Amino acid sequence: MTVLSFGEIMLRLKSPGTERFLQSPVLEAGFGGGESNVAVSLANFEVHSQFLTVLPENIIGDECIRQLRAFGVDVSKIQRAQGRMGVYYIEGGANQLPGKVLYDRSYSAIALAKKGDIDWNAAFEGVDWFHITGITPAISGSAAELSLESVRIAREKGLTVSCDLNYRKNLWKYGTKAPDVMRKLVEYVDIAVANEEDIQKSLGIGTDVDVGSGNLDRDRYRELGDMVLKAYPGMHLVAITLRESHSADSNGWAGCLNDRDNFFQSKNYLIQDIVDRVGGGDAFSGGLIYGLSALDSKQRALEFAVAAGALKHSIPGDYNRVGKDDVSRLMEGDGTGRVQR
Amino acid sequence: MTVLSFGEIMLRLKSPGTERFLQSPVLEAGFGGGESNVAVSLANFEVHSQFLTVLPENIIGDECIRQLRAFGVDVSKIQRAQGRMGVYYIEGGANQLPGKVLYDRSYSAIALAKKGDIDWNAAFEGVDWFHITGITPAISGSAAELSLESVRIAREKGLTVSCDLNYRKNLWKYGTKAPDVMRKLVEYVDIAVANEEDIQKSLGIGTDVDVGSGNLDRDRYRELGDMVLKAYPGMHLVAITLRESHSADSNGWAGCLNDRDNFFQSKNYLIQDIVDRVGGGDAFSGGLIYGLSALDSKQRALEFAVAAGALKHSIPGDYNRVGKDDVSRLMEGDGTGRVQR
Amino acid sequence: MTVLSFGEIMLRLKSPGTERFLQSPVLEAGFGGGESNVAVSLANFEVHSQFLTVLPENIIGDECIRQLRAFGVDVSKIQRAQGRMGVYYIEGGANQLPGKVLYDRSYSAIALAKKGDIDWNAAFEGVDWFHITGITPAISGSAAELSLESVRIAREKGLTVSCDLNYRKNLWKYGTKAPDVMRKLVEYVDIAVANEEDIQKSLGIGTDVDVGSGNLDRDRYRELGDMVLKAYPGMHLVAITLRESHSADSNGWAGCLNDRDNFFQSKNYLIQDIVDRVGGGDAFSGGLIYGLSALDSKQRALEFAVAAGALKHSIPGDYNRVGKDDVSRLMEGDGTGRVQR
Amino acid sequence: MTVLSFGEIMLRLKSPGTERFLQSPVLEAGFGGGESNVAVSLANFEVHSQFLTVLPENIIGDECIRQLRAFGVDVSKIQRAQGRMGVYYIEGGANQLPGKVLYDRSYSAIALAKKGDIDWNAAFEGVDWFHITGITPAISGSAAELSLESVRIAREKGLTVSCDLNYRKNLWKYGTKAPDVMRKLVEYVDIAVANEEDIQKSLGIGTDVDVGSGNLDRDRYRELGDMVLKAYPGMHLVAITLRESHSADSNGWAGCLNDRDNFFQSKNYLIQDIVDRVGGGDAFSGGLIYGLSALDSKQRALEFAVAAGALKHSIPGDYNRVGKDDVSRLMEGDGTGRVQR
Amino acid sequence: MTVLSFGEIMLRLKSPGTERFLQSPVLEAGFGGGESNVAVSLANFEVHSQFLTVLPENIIGDECIRQLRAFGVDVSKIQRAQGRMGVYYIEGGANQLPGKVLYDRSYSAIALAKKGDIDWNAAFEGVDWFHITGITPAISGSAAELSLESVRIAREKGLTVSCDLNYRKNLWKYGTKAPDVMRKLVEYVDIAVANEEDIQKSLGIGTDVDVGSGNLDRDRYRELGDMVLKAYPGMHLVAITLRESHSADSNGWAGCLNDRDNFFQSKNYLIQDIVDRVGGGDAFSGGLIYGLSALDSKQRALEFAVAAGALKHSIPGDYNRVGKDDVSRLMEGDGTGRVQR
Amino acid sequence: MTVLSFGEIMLRLKSPGTERFLQSPVLEAGFGGGESNVAVSLANFEVHSQFLTVLPENIIGDECIRQLRAFGVDVSKIQRAQGRMGVYYIEGGANQLPGKVLYDRSYSAIALAKKGDIDWNAAFEGVDWFHITGITPAISGSAAELSLESVRIAREKGLTVSCDLNYRKNLWKYGTKAPDVMRKLVEYVDIAVANEEDIQKSLGIGTDVDVGSGNLDRDRYRELGDMVLKAYPGMHLVAITLRESHSADSNGWAGCLNDRDNFFQSKNYLIQDIVDRVGGGDAFSGGLIYGLSALDSKQRALEFAVAAGALKHSIPGDYNRVGKDDVSRLMEGDGTGRVQR
Repeated sequence: MTVLSFGEIMLRLKSPGTERFLQSPVLEAGFGGGESNVAVSLANFEVHSQFLTVLPENIIGDECIRQLRAFGVDVSKIQRAQGRMGVYYIEGGANQLPGKVLYDRSYSAIALAKKGDIDWNAAFEGVDWFHITGITPAISGSAAELSLESVRIAREKGLTVSCDLNYRKNLWKYGTKAPDVMRKLVEYVDIAVANEEDIQKSLGIGTDVDVGSGNLDRDRYRELGDMVLKAYPGMHLVAITLRESHSADSNGWAGCLNDRDNFFQSKNYLIQDIVDRVGGGDAFSGGLIYGLSALDSKQRALEFAVAAGALKHSIPGDYNRVGKDDVSRLMEGDGTGRVQR
Repeated sequence: MTVLSFGEIMLRLKSPGTERFLQSPVLEAGFGGGESNVAVSLANFEVHSQFLTVLPENIIGDECIRQLRAFGVDVSKIQRAQGRMGVYYIEGGANQLPGKVLYDRSYSAIALAKKGDIDWNAAFEGVDWFHITGITPAISGSAAELSLESVRIAREKGLTVSCDLNYRKNLWKYGTKAPDVMRKLVEYVDIAVANEEDIQKSLGIGTDVDVGSGNLDRDRYRELGDMVLKAYPGMHLVAITLRESHSADSNGWAGCLNDRDNFFQSKNYLIQDIVDRVGGGDAFSGGLIYGLSALDSKQRALEFAVAAGALKHSIPGDYNRVGKDDVSRLMEGDGTGRVQR
Repeated sequence: MTVLSFGEIMLRLKSPGTERFLQSPVLEAGFGGGESNVAVSLANFEVHSQFLTVLPENIIGDECIRQLRAFGVDVSKIQRAQGRMGVYYIEGGANQLPGKVLYDRSYSAIALAKKGDIDWNAAFEGVDWFHITGITPAISGSAAELSLESVRIAREKGLTVSCDLNYRKNLWKYGTKAPDVMRKLVEYVDIAVANEEDIQKSLGIGTDVDVGSGNLDRDRYRELGDMVLKAYPGMHLVAITLRESHSADSNGWAGCLNDRDNFFQSKNYLIQDIVDRVGGGDAFSGGLIYGLSALDSKQRALEFAVAAGALKHSIPGDYNRVGKDDVSRLMEGDGTGRVQR
Repeated sequence: MTVLSFGEIMLRLKSPGTERFLQSPVLEAGFGGGESNVAVSLANFEVHSQFLTVLPENIIGDECIRQLRAFGVDVSKIQRAQGRMGVYYIEGGANQLPGKVLYDRSYSAIALAKKGDIDWNAAFEGVDWFHITGITPAISGSAAELSLESVRIAREKGLTVSCDLNYRKNLWKYGTKAPDVMRKLVEYVDIAVANEEDIQKSLGIGTDVDVGSGNLDRDRYRELGDMVLKAYPGMHLVAITLRESHSADSNGWAGCLNDRDNFFQSKNYLIQDIVDRVGGGDAFSGGLIYGLSALDSKQRALEFAVAAGALKHSIPGDYNRVGKDDVSRLMEGDGTGRVQR
Repeated sequence: MTVLSFGEIMLRLKSPGTERFLQSPVLEAGFGGGESNVAVSLANFEVHSQFLTVLPENIIGDECIRQLRAFGVDVSKIQRAQGRMGVYYIEGGANQLPGKVLYDRSYSAIALAKKGDIDWNAAFEGVDWFHITGITPAISGSAAELSLESVRIAREKGLTVSCDLNYRKNLWKYGTKAPDVMRKLVEYVDIAVANEEDIQKSLGIGTDVDVGSGNLDRDRYRELGDMVLKAYPGMHLVAITLRESHSADSNGWAGCLNDRDNFFQSKNYLIQDIVDRVGGGDAFSGGLIYGLSALDSKQRALEFAVAAGALKHSIPGDYNRVGKDDVSRLMEGDGTGRVQR
Repeated sequence: MTVLSFGEIMLRLKSPGTERFLQSPVLEAGFGGGESNVAVSLANFEVHSQFLTVLPENIIGDECIRQLRAFGVDVSKIQRAQGRMGVYYIEGGANQLPGKVLYDRSYSAIALAKKGDIDWNAAFEGVDWFHITGITPAISGSAAELSLESVRIAREKGLTVSCDLNYRKNLWKYGTKAPDVMRKLVEYVDIAVANEEDIQKSLGIGTDVDVGSGNLDRDRYRELGDMVLKAYPGMHLVAITLRESHSADSNGWAGCLNDRDNFFQSKNYLIQDIVDRVGGGDAFSGGLIYGLSALDSKQRALEFAVAAGALKHSIPGDYNRVGKDDVSRLMEGDGTGRVQR
C-alpha cells in the first residue's frame, strides 16, 4: 500500500528542556507538521509512505528533505518554489505551566501555492491512500482551495481519503471561518480523525466543551461520532482521540472509533512524565492508517493507533521514532517500561 | 509604585540536570538570591522594581547587573566596592535524593559593607515599598547592622516594609543568633512572609516542627499567624507558605494570610515534576507584593502569590520567568498545562 | 576489610536524556558493569575496594582505570591484555517506552581471558571478601571457567564470597545454559543476591514469573529464599530485590533477606521520577556488603542496601555517587528530598 | 551625547562552530543587525545609546528587547506592531569554505512599517546623532520611504547623520535598484561608512572591483573618498573599511578616513583565527561614532574604529562585547593577546 | 552513471574539539569509512551512488543506513548479517599534537563475511563504476577474498574499477602482508588513487619516504606514477594526492594525475585551520570519479578532486558535506572564504 | 623517585571557546594551579607524584581530590581545613583579544593555613624532590611563612628543591613585596624555573622588559641566567622559558638552561593555533623535573621540558594530558601533527 500525505512541514525550534525561550542562547532544531509526522510514522511502520509539500529552494528545504529521506519517506513528489519555510517555536512547559507554540508560518512556499501549482494526476500516481489535515486549509485561501481540490480528485480516483480535522485557532486568519471550508472538505473524506474540540470548531458539531477540564466523559463520544457520521454520509469511520490534561507532564490518553455499525473503545493510558506531547495525535493517525490496512480488526487498529500515540509522548521532537514492534509490545500489554537488555 | 529590594545576589553554579557536582566538567551559571529574585518577579509583573546591593568591580559584577537589567530591573542604585562576589553551588536532586546547596559567600562585597556605606536617604528616593529578607542580616555582623538601619529608616520615611524571614541555618556564623537580630528587625516590618520553620527559628515562635515530615497541618497556621501578629504590634499582615515535601520532585504548595481580621487560605497545588524549587518562596513574595498593591482583595493577592510560587517550580534558575498573564491564568483555574498554540 | 570485585567493565554509551539512539549526533560516555559498580559503591562507603578485570592496552582501558581510581577504587590488580573493550549502548526510555540496552561485548579482553591467565593467589592477597556476578560466566566459556575457578579458590582461602546472580538473557551465547554453570558456581557462594527472575533463570528454582506484571507478591519471597538456601547448603544468606515496574519512570523498590533463621523485609520505596535505573541492583549489592560488615544488624544491613539501591535511581550513569551519610539519612527516614542548604 | 540607531534587528540562528546547517540538531540563537550592532557597541563604550525598530508583539520581540536592555541600550523608542521577526541563518565556514548567510526577513514588522508609522519628532527627542544603514531601505519600498524621511528630518533638526552604506545584493528585491534610493538618502548624510563594493553598488562610484581578490590596493582609497565627497557636497567625511580576505579564517583589516582636508590611514591588522567576522563593519561604525565624538583627533578616531572592528572578529555573535579599555589597549599597540591575570 | 562503492562503514566516536578521549564524558557520534565517504560525496554531486556493505541487525546498523539515506545514497544493496559494527575512536589534535585514531573493528559483520555471502551479479546490476579501497582487504582474510572476487567480476562485466590504495598499518593483522593481496587486486583496477606511502606499502613501489617530513617533492610524482602504470598494464590512470603536514592544523594539499600520456598537476592549497582532515582523501576520490565522468578534461577532473578534498578539511565528520557548486567555486579560483550573503 | 609538589589548587571556571564571560549561561569547570599542574604532569610521566595542599571539607574539595587521584597523583598528604576553595575565572581570547583571568582566591583554606598547620617532617616522608612556586608565598602572609619554612626544611633534609618563580601581579596584596619574600625563598632552591619577567619582578634581576613585545632576544638569556646563579650561590641550575606572543592564538615557545658550566638552548616551536596556553610553564617544569631525573643529558632534559610545554598549548584545561611517548615523539622531531592510525 502507498500512502500520500500532503501538507505543510515547518522548521521546529525549541528551547532546551523546560527553559523559557532563549533562556540559553540555543534552540533545538528539527522539522515537523501534522502531515509529515504521519508520513514518518508510516515509513517507520514499513509502509510505502510519500509526502507532498512545497518547499523553498534553500538549505532549510534541502535539509528538511534529507531528514525525511533518512526515515525512508519517499520525497520524490515534493515541489520546490518561491516563498519561505514556515517556522514554529516551542517552549516546553511543566506541571501547571503550559508549553507554548509560536507560529511563524506566514508566506511559506506552501501558503503561497495556488490552484494549478500541483498536478494532482501526477501526485496521485500509484497512490492508494491520501491523508490530509485541517491545518493545510487554515494557512491561506489558496491552500484551502488546493486542499479542496486534492480531496475531490483523490475521491474521484477511488483513493481512501483520511483527514485529521486538527483545528488550530491561531491560523484561519485569511478571512474565512474554519467550518466554511472544513464542512466542504469533509464531504470527500472516508476516515476522519479528531478530538472533541476539532469536531466542534471545524464542523460545528457538538457543544462547546471545556477541553481544559482534564476529565473528559468518554461515554458521550459514541453519540458525537454518530452525529458526525450522520452529517457526512460519505464518511465510513470517525476516530476520536481523548486527552485528559492533568498537567503539562501528566495526561490521560485514549481513543475510540465509530464505524456506523460499532463503537470501539481503547485502553486508557496514563502518561505521567511526558517528554514531548506534540505529534501525539499525528502518531495516532499514522497508527490508525497502518492498523486499518494491516491489522485484522478495527479494535486492534484502534489499539495500535492509541498505543502509537501514547509512545510518542516519550520521544522528543515531532516524529514518532518507534517501530511496529514497539507499538505492538505496548498494545499487547507490556507498558511496564522495564529496560530491555 | 516603586519597590526597592535590598540584599545579596550571588553567582549560582549548578551541575546539569540531576548530575552530581562536576560529574560532567561543566556548571550552569546564573545569578540569584532571595531579594533579587523578588525584584525580578516584580519587574516581570511590570512594577517599577529597583534592586540595591553591593557588588565587586569585576566582570562577574558587571554581568550580574547586565542580567538584572535585561529583566527591566532598575539597577541604578547598586553600589560597587571591594570584596568578592558570593557564589552558591547547587546539585539538583531527584526522588529521595535531596538537592544540595553549598554557600561560598564569605567576604562578599555586601558582607563587608558597613554602616554608613549606604546612603539610605538616597536609596529610598522615590521608593514606596521596601523589601528585605532574613538572609542579609545572617551574612555578617555589619550586614545585620545595615539591615536594621535600613528597615528603621524605611519605616520612618513611611515606606511599606516587607520581610521574608528566610532562616538559613548554614549562615548566622558571625557570633550572633538569628532571633537576637530578627526580633529587632521585625519590629519595623509591615508585612512578613515566612514558613513555619522560619518563624520558629528566627523569632522563636511556635514549636519545633519536623519540616521534613511531608504532611503539614494547615489548620494550625492561623494560630501561628496570630502569635506573630500579637508579638509584633506594628506588623499588619503575615503570610505563611506551606510546602509538603513528598520527594525532591513532588511537593504540595499552598499559602495562607493573616491580617489580624481575617485568615485567608489559598488553593493547594500539587507539583509533581519539579524543575527547580529554588526561588519558589521568593516568587511567592514577589507575587504577594504585586497582589497586595494591584489586586482588589487580599484573597486574590494570596492566590496570585501562591500561583506565582507554584509556577516558579517549573522554571530552571532562581528567577521566576513568568508574566502577569501566566500567573493569572493559573490563579483563575487553568492548571492543565495544555500546550498553547 | 578489603573487598575484591571481579568481572567485566564496559564503555557505556548513552543517547542524551530520552532521545533515541543518535537522534542527536552525540553519546554520553562513561563506564560500568555489575562488578565495577559494586566496587565503586564500596569505595564511596570508604571500604578498601579492589577491582579485578582484564582490559585492553589502549586509551579506553587507560581512561577506564583513571575513572575507577578517581573514586578511590584500588586498580592495582587490573590486568592488561589483547582483545577489545566491551561497549554497551543504552537508550533512556520514559513512561511506557522501555529503555534499551545493546551489548557489543564479544571478544573483549576479559571474554578472551583463559584459565591460568589470572593468578588467583596474587589476586586474593590481602582480600577478605570476594564479589562476583552471574554476568561474567555468561560472556564466554573461558570466562565461565575462570569464574568457577575464582569462587572455588576464594572459598578455599576462607574468603566471604558474594554473588549477584544477575541473569542476562542476551548473553549465554557460547553454547552452555545458565543453570549448567550457575548451579556449580553458587555452591561456593556464601551470600547470594538476586531477583526472582535471576533465581528462576539461573538456578531453575521457582516458577516462571511474569516480571513485567508490575505487582509482585512480596509474601512469596520468604519461600523462594528458603528453597535456594535448601538447595545450596553452603550458602548462608540470600537477599532478594523486589522491583515493581509501573513505568520506565516509576518503580517500586524493596528487598528482603533470608538467613535461614530469619526473614527480614525492608521498607518499600516508590521512585516516581527515575533518572537512571541501571546499576540499582549493583548499588543494593554494594550497600549489602557494606551493611553486613559494618552495621549492627541484618535488618539494618538490608535497609542500608535497599536505601542505597533506591538512591541510585536518582543518579545518571552506572555508578552510585552517594556516600554513607546520604544512604543513612534515607535509611533513617528522611526521604522528603528537601533541598539541603 | 545621545545616539539613535534605526533599522531592522533579526533573530540570528547559527550552526555550531564549523558545522553545516543542522549537521547537529541545534542552532545557536542570538540577535543582530547592522544598526543594533552599532547601538550595542556604543552602549558598551558608555555612550547613551538608543535603538529604534519595529518588533512584533511576541516572545521573540520580547527577548530581543531584553537582550538589548542587558547591554544598557535604551529601548524605550522601540515600536511593536504586526508582522514577523526577521531571521537570518548562518553557517560558519573555514579556510577556503565560505560562511553562508540565508535571510528570512520578508514580511517583518519593520518591512511592513509605512510612512507615518513612526513619529520622527518623538523619535528624535533628545537625540544628537542619528545612525542608519543601507540595509533598511533595501528591505521594502515602505522601509525605503521611512529611511528617506528619517534622514531628511534628522538633518532638518540639526542632528549629525551617519550612514553605513552596507550593500546587500540579496535584498533590494522590491523593484527598485539600490542607487535609486541610496543616492537620495546619502544627500542627508554627514558621515558615510563603506567599503569599496558598497560605494560602487550603492552609489555607482568607482569601478567594479573584485572584492574577492584578497589584495586590495590601499592607495586608491583616497581617490575613491574624494569622488564620494565631491558627489555629495553635504557630506563631511567618508570612512572606508579595507578587508583583505585571505581565507574564511584569515583577513587583513584596516580603514581610512577622508574629511576633504586630510586622508588618514590606520594600522593594518592581520586576523588569522577569525571567530566571527559578522558585525566587524558595524563594530567599526560604532567605534567611529564614539571616536569622532570623544577622542581628540580624527586619526585617533579612525584607529579606535579599526581596533574595535578588529576585536569583533574574535567574539562570537553579532555584538562587539568589548569595552573602551579593550579597544584602547589594542589601539595603543598591545595586540600580543597575552593572558591578562 | 551509477557508481557502487563497497567496503566497511564504522561508527565514528570523537572527543569534542581538541579534548583528549573522555576529557568530557561525551563522544560526538557519526559514521564513516573510506568507501562510504566516497558514496556520500558522489550523492552530494548528484551522481546515482550506491553503497554495499554488511551491517549487523541492530539499532546501530539501522541508524547507519538512515544517515546514508539522508544524503541520497542508494542503500538497497546493503546486507544485514551476524557480527558487530566496527567502531573507530578519534581524538582531534592541534599544532604539534597529532590526532589519534583507535580502531575497534575486529569481528565486524563485514570482516566475518565470506566468499559467497555476496551475490556479485546482483550487486553489479545496473552499475557502471565500481569503487573499492585497500582497507577492505586489510580487515580479514575472508574480506580480502571478497575484495579480490569483487574486482575480478567487476572487470569481467566491463565496469570501470577504481581503487584507493589506502594503506593502514594497524590493520593487516590476519597473517598476510599488504602487497601479497594488493598486487593481485590492483591488476583489475582501471583507476588507482594513492599517496606516496600507500604506493610504497601496498605495492612495494618507490622508496620508503618519510611522510612526516612535511615537505614533499612534487617533481618525483610523475616518475612514481610511471612506475605504477608500468607495473600494472591494465591500469589506465593513477592519481596521487600530496599532503604536506606542517602541523595538525596546517597542511599543504595538492594532487597529480598520470594517464600514461600526460602528467597533470593541480593547484596547491594551503589549509591553515583544519577542522577535520579525516576523509580528505576520500573526498578526493569522490571528486575524481565525478570529475572523470562529468567534466571535460582530466586537468579539470583533477582540479575538481583536489578542490573537493581541500573543502573536506573545513567540515567536521567523515562526510564531505559540499555540493558541486561549492567545489566548482573553489576550483574556479574563489578561495577567499568571504561570507556569502 | 618521589616528588612532592606544594601549593594552592583552584576551581577553574572558563567560558566556552572564545565566548565572553557568561555569554552562554555555562562555565567549563576543572581544577588547576601551578603546583598541581606539575604534579599531574609528573604522574602522567609515571613518576611517583605527590601533591600537598589544604582544601576545605566540602564537595569541591572532594571532587578536586578525585580528579587528582584519577591521574594517579598521590593525594594522601592533602590536608582538609576551614576556609573556602579558591576559584579562578577565565575567558579565552583570540587574535588580538587577550584571554583574561579573574582570581577569586582570597580566604582560601591554604591562604588561611598558618605556620605549624603542616607537619613538614611527615610531609617530606619518603620524598626526594620538593617543588614549590612563587604563587604560594603571594597569596597571604601566613602562606609566605609556610613557603619559607617548607624550602628551608626540605633543603635541610637534603631534598632537591625546585621553584617556578611565577610572578603574579594581581596577588601580593597582603602588604609585602614579592622580592622581600622571594629572595629569601630562592636561597633554598636548587633549580629555578622562570621567564624574564618573573626574574625581574620576583628577584629584581635584569631590566624591566616589555614582555608584550612579541620578539624576545634569545641571546641575552645566558647573561640573565648567569646573574641569577651569581646572586644565589646555592642554586645549581636556572631554566628560562621564552614565549613570543604574536597573538592570543600564535606564540613562539622555547627554553634555555644555565647550569653555571654550560648554556643549553632548545628548539623553537611555533604554536599557531593555541588551544589553551594556561599551564604551559607548569608543563615545562614538570617536563624538566622528569627530564633531569630520567634522561641522560641536560640538553635532552631541556628539550623534553620545552616539548612538554609546547604540547600543553594544544590541550584544554590546566593539566598536560600527554604521556612520555607523546613528548618524546615531538622532542625527537615529529611535530607534523599527522593523524596516528
